[in-house]
Amino acid sequence: MIISNGVKNFADKLLEATEKMKNPSCIGLDPRIEDIPDFLKGGDITETFFDFNKMIIDATYDIVPAFKVQIAFYEKYKVEGIKAFEKTINYLKKKNKIVIVDAKRNDIGPTAEAYSSAYLSPEGFDVDALTANPYFGIDGLKPFIDDAIKYGKGIFVLVKTSNPSSREFQDQTLKSGKKLYELIGEKVNEWGKNTKGETGYQIVGTIVGATYPKELKSLRKVMPQSIFLVPGYGAQGGTIKDIIFAFNKDGEGAIVNNSRGIIFAWKNESYSKRFRPREFHLAAREAALAMKKELLSALSN
Amino acid sequence: MIISNGVKNFADKLLEATEKMKNPSCIGLDPRIEDIPDFLKGGDITETFFDFNKMIIDATYDIVPAFKVQIAFYEKYKVEGIKAFEKTINYLKKKNKIVIVDAKRNDIGPTAEAYSSAYLSPEGFDVDALTANPYFGIDGLKPFIDDAIKYGKGIFVLVKTSNPSSREFQDQTLKSGKKLYELIGEKVNEWGKNTKGETGYQIVGTIVGATYPKELKSLRKVMPQSIFLVPGYGAQGGTIKDIIFAFNKDGEGAIVNNSRGIIFAWKNESYSKRFRPREFHLAAREAALAMKKELLSALSN
Repeated sequence: MIISNGVKNFADKLLEATEKMKNPSCIGLDPRIEDIPDFLKGGDITETFFDFNKMIIDATYDIVPAFKVQIAFYEKYKVEGIKAFEKTINYLKKKNKIVIVDAKRNDIGPTAEAYSSAYLSPEGFDVDALTANPYFGIDGLKPFIDDAIKYGKGIFVLVKTSNPSSREFQDQTLKSGKKLYELIGEKVNEWGKNTKGETGYQIVGTIVGATYPKELKSLRKVMPQSIFLVPGYGAQGGTIKDIIFAFNKDGEGAIVNNSRGIIFAWKNESYSKRFRPREFHLAAREAALAMKKELLSALSN
Repeated sequence: MIISNGVKNFADKLLEATEKMKNPSCIGLDPRIEDIPDFLKGGDITETFFDFNKMIIDATYDIVPAFKVQIAFYEKYKVEGIKAFEKTINYLKKKNKIVIVDAKRNDIGPTAEAYSSAYLSPEGFDVDALTANPYFGIDGLKPFIDDAIKYGKGIFVLVKTSNPSSREFQDQTLKSGKKLYELIGEKVNEWGKNTKGETGYQIVGTIVGATYPKELKSLRKVMPQSIFLVPGYGAQGGTIKDIIFAFNKDGEGAIVNNSRGIIFAWKNESYSKRFRPREFHLAAREAALAMKKELLSALSN
């Protein structure tokens, strides 16, 4: 494990954790009040969201190496929501889990510095990794990369997103013949080339939706050393057959996220017959185990 | 003034305010602890930031129609910062000012809905307008546009940003011969075409940096009905000669932001000789008046 100034490389840390748990997946903690069992309601949003998340974490932390927290669902509830966000993050840290904040932040350099400090610095939420939008070009991303190097953190840059209209701009063919997302992928390689750890992976990762298997496959080929964070599995329609393209041939290099399919499994037909609302966390555990099994089985073929 | 279901069109509301105050500019409330006079420090960040902002607002609200609040500088301080953000917004509303939150939010549809609710809905911060990043394409922006129509709000979409490396992706020439930012500009026109108010302007606005006058000029020509929010004036190097291209020939259609040049005017050489730290708000007032004068003079030529 390469350690510079006592700081562990994020890519090494993430891969060590996925290997140790034999599970390259993460759970998305994206609470929606309408999908939380009634017995948890009654208090304020801080309490309801944290109690819900805590039960999910307690039921799954021995299965998954990492959790992804989508801040939009907390921001929606202003200060009360951000308090739940912070409590959740602190609890995940206490459980020694890798915490990825999905915030897709982006701005000009001096403002990006403030965002980076908010999430990656010891004075901020101090999580392991943050997602970022590349539209500003390198000077809007450099503050995140610099802090990631300094504090042993990672960033995941949007390259090809999982939604239908990601085609609108990301798939534009440039004069050079490349698509825009391919150019951004190349730049991610370049930005991260001096940030590699012992595993050979860099701390500048890539977001590619599971809903675009062809693009996953072609990006994986040209970006062998960037870790892919793959959303879109489950509720958004990405299947295991698609997801598998996110991994390198040795079965490494990707982490697959599932949010709704795990945390709200208790509302899916296949689980709701067997679990009562009070057992939502047990349904989440079963869904997390099923996902792990599905991924490992596909990777061993 | 077109009012549908009792909801006033945001473009009409903004232009009415800029005309009434004869000032197409807004002040950016982007507090940085190191630039705040010492006499305001001592309490927590909520108190320090709000006290600072309140003194700026009290000293300038009779000059400018709108304020832009960059959330990154508040997010940096987690819950304490967001409390200052909320107090500032509520105070601006009490003063009947137009509040633009600069957050550049972006995500897939269901997540964008949560962000949109956070800022534009009556249950959220309920501000007048929000900035957004277009990388996801229309389905990531539609939730913001829908809420803007429903609640009488506006959005400003990043088209050409003010930073040096905005060239890296935004200026890529597409196979069609257009640049990426030009394509996004066209899409902004299209997305907003059914949202025009009595003034003819749409509620889907555009962000174009003052640091790119050539691009400002060409975009203004092809986007006559989108309001331009123009950052980059002052500290970032955009001059009045550049800014003027943001306006239509009738002198309408743009709002120019200045953050550091106004709120930290007391630290600029030209003001620091005449104002003590305790008079920082008076320096801000003078800088706001100077900006108004400069804009009006340039527009009348």
